[in-house]
Amino acid sequence: MKLSNRILKMQYSPIRKLQHYVDSAERRGITLHKLNIGQPDIETPKEFFEAIKRFNEKTLAYSNSQGNSKLIQEFINYYKSLNISFEENEIVITNGGSEAIQYIITTICDNGENILIPEPFYTNYNSFCEMSNVEVIPFLTKVEEAFKLPKKEEITKHINSKTKAIMIANPGNPTGRVYTLEELKILEEIVEEYDLFLIVDEVYREFVYDNIEFISCMKLQKIHNRIILIDSISKRYSACGARIGLVASKNLDVMNNILKLCQARLCSPTLEQISAIALLKTPKCYLEKVHDEYEERRNILYNGLKSIPNLTLYRPQGAFYIIVRLPIKDADDFAIWLLESFSYNNESIVVAPAAGFYATEGLGRNEIRISYCVNKETLKKATKILMLALNEYLETH
Amino acid sequence: MKLSNRILKMQYSPIRKLQHYVDSAERRGITLHKLNIGQPDIETPKEFFEAIKRFNEKTLAYSNSQGNSKLIQEFINYYKSLNISFEENEIVITNGGSEAIQYIITTICDNGENILIPEPFYTNYNSFCEMSNVEVIPFLTKVEEAFKLPKKEEITKHINSKTKAIMIANPGNPTGRVYTLEELKILEEIVEEYDLFLIVDEVYREFVYDNIEFISCMKLQKIHNRIILIDSISKRYSACGARIGLVASKNLDVMNNILKLCQARLCSPTLEQISAIALLKTPKCYLEKVHDEYEERRNILYNGLKSIPNLTLYRPQGAFYIIVRLPIKDADDFAIWLLESFSYNNESIVVAPAAGFYATEGLGRNEIRISYCVNKETLKKATKILMLALNEYLETH
Ligand SMILES: Cc1ncc(COP(=O)(O)O)c(C=O)c1O
Ligand SMILES: Cc1ncc(COP(=O)(O)O)c(C=O)c1O
Repeated sequence: MKLSNRILKMQYSPIRKLQHYVDSAERRGITLHKLNIGQPDIETPKEFFEAIKRFNEKTLAYSNSQGNSKLIQEFINYYKSLNISFEENEIVITNGGSEAIQYIITTICDNGENILIPEPFYTNYNSFCEMSNVEVIPFLTKVEEAFKLPKKEEITKHINSKTKAIMIANPGNPTGRVYTLEELKILEEIVEEYDLFLIVDEVYREFVYDNIEFISCMKLQKIHNRIILIDSISKRYSACGARIGLVASKNLDVMNNILKLCQARLCSPTLEQISAIALLKTPKCYLEKVHDEYEERRNILYNGLKSIPNLTLYRPQGAFYIIVRLPIKDADDFAIWLLESFSYNNESIVVAPAAGFYATEGLGRNEIRISYCVNKETLKKATKILMLALNEYLETH
Repeated sequence: MKLSNRILKMQYSPIRKLQHYVDSAERRGITLHKLNIGQPDIETPKEFFEAIKRFNEKTLAYSNSQGNSKLIQEFINYYKSLNISFEENEIVITNGGSEAIQYIITTICDNGENILIPEPFYTNYNSFCEMSNVEVIPFLTKVEEAFKLPKKEEITKHINSKTKAIMIANPGNPTGRVYTLEELKILEEIVEEYDLFLIVDEVYREFVYDNIEFISCMKLQKIHNRIILIDSISKRYSACGARIGLVASKNLDVMNNILKLCQARLCSPTLEQISAIALLKTPKCYLEKVHDEYEERRNILYNGLKSIPNLTLYRPQGAFYIIVRLPIKDADDFAIWLLESFSYNNESIVVAPAAGFYATEGLGRNEIRISYCVNKETLKKATKILMLALNEYLETH
């Protein structure tokens, strides 16, 4: 009754692994500010709930496996507003961006093949690869270089005969990096030259700051056929619990084959798909307001962190995370200490040790990821707590 | 840019592959009775929709990865009412029974290992195995033997060093078989003797007819630790579009490891989990009424089919499907002919060719699966249409 090696090798979520310490701190009456998870406190547009309430069929039936065709049409309109053109057969709806990631990996990679990913990266890319016996080959990007992609040769030297794709998140989680056209052009060159797919996760597309123009990979016309897009309403509309995402690609071979996986799992949630149609019709001002709110939060957090001595960090330009290198040895130990041994006015913070976002053993040990999808007051308090805690930790360790 | 061999090997859903012919018949104005899919026309309990409408949080957040703890508690109560005891850490909520199947396979099997399944079986078992590079080893059960499990040696002769589990659906789709204690005891012996898991899909548990007592595999106390249960609210409460299922097992090694997969995909739909709590509190009379309705439908369909000469069939005792062997060569051809070339009063029927439910190439070619989750009037008409069509087909072929 041995379990599979692939499952035994898989890690528990590094974001959620502090839960035990969190529970016990809360039982001791400590108020915790949770900067470790990507759950926004922003309100979901009311249009979503109104649409749910309008549903009046008597039977909650399966929807079709590709996805509700009106929802697909609505996504087509959404992309059109970004000057990206998709046809109906170039999109399938998935159970969140999460299922999209998993299905793409299964569709393009066999057992033992690999995907190149700049590290640090969204940790579940690793889990989905391990599930499918696909290897992640990381190449390093660094906080002191603003997580810029390395030179072409630094990337291509990792490619081998089993490499099927390069995968990026843009804007990046946990880096907050928004790739420049120059960086994207390097990827374009590489995937052409080495005959690879480019998997692009743009779930944070709307959250780009400092008036920087976001450049979707879909603008790389020359390699249209190689690009597979991951998308999701989770963060965009603060509708994480709806579990609606998608895969989109101009490559119909990919799309037709991914449909087999969609058919196997029957469908995505019917009601949420219907309500997501309403969500996509939400007035643009909703997204603008949310964008501005996140930018302010970014400013508060970044400026707060900047005032703490000896931190290495980069001003993130997108998404809602920041990687901070601390003047300590072991961020795991620090994160646990914050929950077990520290409090200020009976409050403390939960941070995500960053090692879990690196595939290379030993990297990120002195870094943490802080998520700024919580409100400004909390961020202010949290920065203060971090400063005090760090002082005390450095004195006592 | 080659896709993976695993995806290329996978089939499109055999249940849905007639869609193209269906669309074109409907465009020609033919009314089609769809006996090919497992989408009940039964109403979802209103408790579900009421609970959805009561939700009044402002943000639709992720739920926890294991599942809403109140829902898990409600499932524990449900199982208790069946004299099956589960603890909170022995259940994880999944995106339908579908995800449960996939996660179980990934958790126990590595690339190249295999699972024994009596054929014909629910066709997506195959898809989920192929996704994970796990082999299905079928062993035959026959309509003329009421799909009874074969003798022990007939099963064990298929076991090899890479076999990790036996998997059954009870009641069976597409067979309608409800296994006797004697049959289950054989499986119990085998999994003990060969050190295997027993994966049991009981999503049709409530739909067992003729006053037969349903025996859950969870009653096999001796092998508790080897049993992994798949369940779902889809059919039980006619809530297919909700996508709520579960994995349950007394084996905590299995459960703890499956949680890694649940964490990777973040969560199941939040609102549906909350509403499923209400669903599980639906008065028992709902399930009793639905049960009786299906039993009547079974009677009408079975009696109708019995009156057609030269069919081989077995009176199904559970679920809502029947396998019928026709006096023809090629059920695929017949199913397409029904859509392209036949109509009676401008009506025809859609049936599922059964070959897709067998893993052994060549089996089931002259069989179809008919689903009786549609209303009685439709079933009466459909039986008549099948009789007339069969006559005409036999005359012209
Ligand atoms: C970069 C990135 N991609 C995908 C996802 C998956 O989100 P979901 O499955 O809710 O769409 C997340 C969630 O945090 C993410 O950060
Ligand atoms: C035997 C069996 N198991 C599992 C499923 C999966 O159903 P769901 O994912 O809707 O729970 C089905 C659906 O038809 C089925 O027939």
